[in-house]
Amino acid sequence: MKFTVREIANLIKGTVEGDENAEIFKLSKIEQGEPGSISFLANPKYTQYIYQTKASAVIVNNDFVPEQKLDCTLIRVENAYNAFGMMLEAYNNLIRRKSGISKHAAIAESAEIGENCYIGNFVSIGEYVRIGANVKIHPNSTIGDNVVIGDNTEIFAGVSIYNDCHIGSDCTLHSGVVIGGDGFGFAPQSDNQYAKMAQIGNVVIHDKVEIGANTTIDRATLGSTVIGRGVKLDNLIQIAHNVEIGENTVIAAQTGIAGSTSIGRNCMIAGQVGIIGHLKIGNEVKIAAQSGISTDVADGSIIMGSPAFEISNYRKSYVYFRGLPKLVDRISALEKKLKDKD
Amino acid sequence: MKFTVREIANLIKGTVEGDENAEIFKLSKIEQGEPGSISFLANPKYTQYIYQTKASAVIVNNDFVPEQKLDCTLIRVENAYNAFGMMLEAYNNLIRRKSGISKHAAIAESAEIGENCYIGNFVSIGEYVRIGANVKIHPNSTIGDNVVIGDNTEIFAGVSIYNDCHIGSDCTLHSGVVIGGDGFGFAPQSDNQYAKMAQIGNVVIHDKVEIGANTTIDRATLGSTVIGRGVKLDNLIQIAHNVEIGENTVIAAQTGIAGSTSIGRNCMIAGQVGIIGHLKIGNEVKIAAQSGISTDVADGSIIMGSPAFEISNYRKSYVYFRGLPKLVDRISALEKKLKDKD
Amino acid sequence: MKFTVREIANLIKGTVEGDENAEIFKLSKIEQGEPGSISFLANPKYTQYIYQTKASAVIVNNDFVPEQKLDCTLIRVENAYNAFGMMLEAYNNLIRRKSGISKHAAIAESAEIGENCYIGNFVSIGEYVRIGANVKIHPNSTIGDNVVIGDNTEIFAGVSIYNDCHIGSDCTLHSGVVIGGDGFGFAPQSDNQYAKMAQIGNVVIHDKVEIGANTTIDRATLGSTVIGRGVKLDNLIQIAHNVEIGENTVIAAQTGIAGSTSIGRNCMIAGQVGIIGHLKIGNEVKIAAQSGISTDVADGSIIMGSPAFEISNYRKSYVYFRGLPKLVDRISALEKKLKDKD
Repeated sequence: MKFTVREIANLIKGTVEGDENAEIFKLSKIEQGEPGSISFLANPKYTQYIYQTKASAVIVNNDFVPEQKLDCTLIRVENAYNAFGMMLEAYNNLIRRKSGISKHAAIAESAEIGENCYIGNFVSIGEYVRIGANVKIHPNSTIGDNVVIGDNTEIFAGVSIYNDCHIGSDCTLHSGVVIGGDGFGFAPQSDNQYAKMAQIGNVVIHDKVEIGANTTIDRATLGSTVIGRGVKLDNLIQIAHNVEIGENTVIAAQTGIAGSTSIGRNCMIAGQVGIIGHLKIGNEVKIAAQSGISTDVADGSIIMGSPAFEISNYRKSYVYFRGLPKLVDRISALEKKLKDKD
Repeated sequence: MKFTVREIANLIKGTVEGDENAEIFKLSKIEQGEPGSISFLANPKYTQYIYQTKASAVIVNNDFVPEQKLDCTLIRVENAYNAFGMMLEAYNNLIRRKSGISKHAAIAESAEIGENCYIGNFVSIGEYVRIGANVKIHPNSTIGDNVVIGDNTEIFAGVSIYNDCHIGSDCTLHSGVVIGGDGFGFAPQSDNQYAKMAQIGNVVIHDKVEIGANTTIDRATLGSTVIGRGVKLDNLIQIAHNVEIGENTVIAAQTGIAGSTSIGRNCMIAGQVGIIGHLKIGNEVKIAAQSGISTDVADGSIIMGSPAFEISNYRKSYVYFRGLPKLVDRISALEKKLKDKD
Repeated sequence: MKFTVREIANLIKGTVEGDENAEIFKLSKIEQGEPGSISFLANPKYTQYIYQTKASAVIVNNDFVPEQKLDCTLIRVENAYNAFGMMLEAYNNLIRRKSGISKHAAIAESAEIGENCYIGNFVSIGEYVRIGANVKIHPNSTIGDNVVIGDNTEIFAGVSIYNDCHIGSDCTLHSGVVIGGDGFGFAPQSDNQYAKMAQIGNVVIHDKVEIGANTTIDRATLGSTVIGRGVKLDNLIQIAHNVEIGENTVIAAQTGIAGSTSIGRNCMIAGQVGIIGHLKIGNEVKIAAQSGISTDVADGSIIMGSPAFEISNYRKSYVYFRGLPKLVDRISALEKKLKDKD
C-alpha cells in the first residue's frame, strides 16, 4: 500500500508543510524513521528526534514551532496523538479486513446473522443467537444459545460466550475471553461438602467495551453481571458474578473483583488490584497497582495499599516502613539515655 | 415454562402457606419480585423486602415469623437458601439440556464414549480416551490421548485437557481451563541457558470438583498433581506441578500455588494468594486475600499478610503501619523532651 | 516399552554398577520405586531412600559413595538430575509422537507447511503463514495471517496467535496462550470516553522460548514486543505491548509486566510480581514473589516488597512491622517514664 502525504493529510484533516506528493508506505516511531515512513510528534520529550529523523513526513500539533531546520514534510493537526491514532486505525482496517462465512463454521439454523459479517473457521454458533451487522468472529470461538451480539463488534479467536449473554455494539473481545461462566457460589453443608448454587443469570456488556485476552466475566446468580458503556478491561482480569461496572471505567491487567461489588463510572483501577465482594466503589476513583480493597470507597478517592487507604498517607507510612530499623535504633537510644539518667 | 407453587413445594419438600395454585414462571431476587415470580428469604438483612415484594411466592425458613401482613404465598422449608439453590439447579438442568454427538466433532476410533453424552461442535477427542455416561463436552474443547472422564461431568467450551489426565465424576470444568500443561521445570546450565525437564506425570482430579474459567493445572514431573474430592477452584487460578489439594478445599480467583506444595482438606483460601513451593499447608486453614505464604502452616491457622502471619496480629501491625507518621512524631517529641532535659 | 539398564546407560552416557541386563519399563521417584522402575538421586535430602528403594536401577552422581549395602543397580553420570531429565525427554518424545495433517484442519492455500509437521483437528491456519519443519500444532489452535513459526516448535491445543507475529524455533507454547492481542492503549477524550489507539505492531518470540498455559503477550503499538532467546514464562503471565525481555530470563506464574518496560537477561522473577510501564530492569536481577516494581532496577539487584527495595532491608523492615505492637508499647513506656520524671 502506498499513499501520498496529501492523501493522509486529507484523512486526518491536517495541513501540509513541505512536499505533499511524497510517498508514504510505512509507519514508524520518530526515533526509527526511514525514507518513505510517516511518524508523529506529540510528547515534547521526543522533540529532539524530529531534527534527525529520516521519516518522510511527521504529524505535529498546530502549535509546533521548529527550532532547527527540518528535512521532513510536516502535517499539522489539532492533536497529533489522536491523528496518528486515526491513521493507525484506518491502516488497521485495511490490513485486517476479513469477510465471509467459513464453510468450516457450524451455525445453528435458528441463528440470525446480520449483513457483512465475518465468521471464521470452526466457529460454533448456538440456537437462537442474534448477531448484528459487520460483526467479525474469528476461528475457534464458541457462541452459546440465545446470545445477542451488536453491530460492528469483533470477537477474536478462541473466545467462549455462554448461553444467554448479551454483547453490545462496537465491542472488542480478545482471544481467550470467557463470558458467562458460572459464578463461584457454593453453600457449605454440614459434612464439609459444598452444594453448588446454580447460576441462572447472565452477563450484559454495553457498547464500546474492550475486553483483553483471557479475561473472565462470570454470569450472575440471578439477574445480570453488567459492564457499562465504554469500559476498557485489560488481560487476565477476573469479574465475578453480579458485579456492575460503570461507564468509561478502565481496569488494568490481572485485577480481580469479587461478587456483587459495584464500581462507579470514570474510575481508573491499576493492575493486580483485588476488590472483595459486596462493596460500593464510587465514581472517579483511582486505585494504585496491587492494592487490596476491603471497604466501600467514596467518589473521587485515590487509594493505595492492602488494605488500601489515601495514597499520600500510604506513601508516608511506607517511607517509615522502609526506615523501621532506624526508628527502632532511635527508640533503643532513648531507652538507654533514660536508663542512664536513672 | 410454568409451574404452580404446589409443584415447586413438592420439588423442594416445603409446606405452602397461601395460594398453592399460584402460577410461577420466573425467578427473582426478593427486592425485584414481580407477579408470577418466586423468590427466597434467607439473609435477615433482606427481611424488610418480604413485606413489599410483588413476587407471587417466597421460600422462607421454617422458623420465619412475619411481623406484618404478607401479600405473597410462602413455601416453608428447613433451609431457604439451599432450597432456592435446588430450584435453580432444577431450572438450570431444564434450560441447559444438551445431547447428541455433533457431526462436526472429531473422535478417535479407539475412544469410548458412554451413554447419553453431549459432544459439541469441533470437539477433538484423542486415542484411547474413555468418557463415562451423561458427560457433556461443549464446542472447541480438546481431549488428549488416554484421558479418562467420569460420569456426569460437564466440560464447557474451549477447554484443553492434555494426554493421560484423569477427570472424576460430577465435575464441572469451565471454559478456557487447561489441565495437564507441562510443569515449570528447568535445570540451569553453566551458560545461563535452561534445560527443560520433561514432565511425564499427569493430573488426577477427583469427583465433584468445580474448576473456574481459564484456571490452569500443570501435570506432575513424575506421579500426579492431585485435586481432591469436592474441591472448588475459582477462575484464573494457577496450580503448579505435583501440588496436592485435600477434599472440600475452596480457593478464590487468581490464587497461585507453586510446585510440590500440599494443601489440606476443608481449607478456605481467598483470592490473589500466593503460596510458594514445597510447603505443607494443614487442614481447615484460612488464608486472607493477597497473602503470601512462604512457610508451612499448621492445621486450623487463620493467616494474613505477605509473608503471612496470624490474622489478628497482622491487623494490629497494619493499624500501627497506618499510624507510623504519628508514631514517628511521638519518638521525635520524646527525643526533644529528653534533649531539653539535658 | 522395555529397555535394559545398559541401553539407558548408553543414552545418558553413564557407567553401570550392577546388573546391566535388568529390565526397566517405568520411571519412578526414588521413595516410590518398584521392581522394573528406574529412579535418580540428586538431592542429598533423599539419600536415605536409596538404601530402601525397590527400584531396579538408580541414576547417581559419579561422586556418590554408598554408606550401606544397595539392592539396586547404579548408573553413574556427571549430573544425575540432568541425566534423568534427558531420559524423561527421550521417553516423552516416544510417547508424545504425533504426525500428519488432520483432514479436519483448515489451512489457507497460501500457507507453507514444512516437512514432517503435525497439524491437529480444527486447527485454523491463515493466509501467507510460514511454518518450519517438525512443527506440532495441536487441535483447536488458530494461527493468524502472515504468522511465521520456526522449526521444531510445539503449539498445544487452544492457542491463538494473531496476524503478523513471529515465533522462533524450538519453542513450546502451552494451551490457551494468546500471542499478539492488541496492547491496552486508549487516549482519554474530553467527554470521559476513551479512543482506541490501533495496535499495528507485532510480537517476536526468539528461539527456545517456553510459554505457560493461558499466558498473554500483547502486540506492540508500533514495532515489536520482543521475547528473547531461551526465555521461560510460566502460566497466566501478562506481557503488555512493547515490552522486551532479555535472553534466558525466567518468570514465574501470574506476574504482569506493563507496557514498554524492558527486562535484562538472566533475570529471575518470581510469581505474582507486578512491574509498571516504561521501566528498565537490568541484567541478572532477582525479584521476590508478589513484589511491585515502580522504578528502574540496576543490574544484579535482589529486591522484594511493594514498592520493592533491597531484599535483606525489606526483611528487616518486615520483622519490625510484625513487632509494631511491641514497639508502640516501648514508646508508651518511654512517654510514661518521662512524664513521671516531670
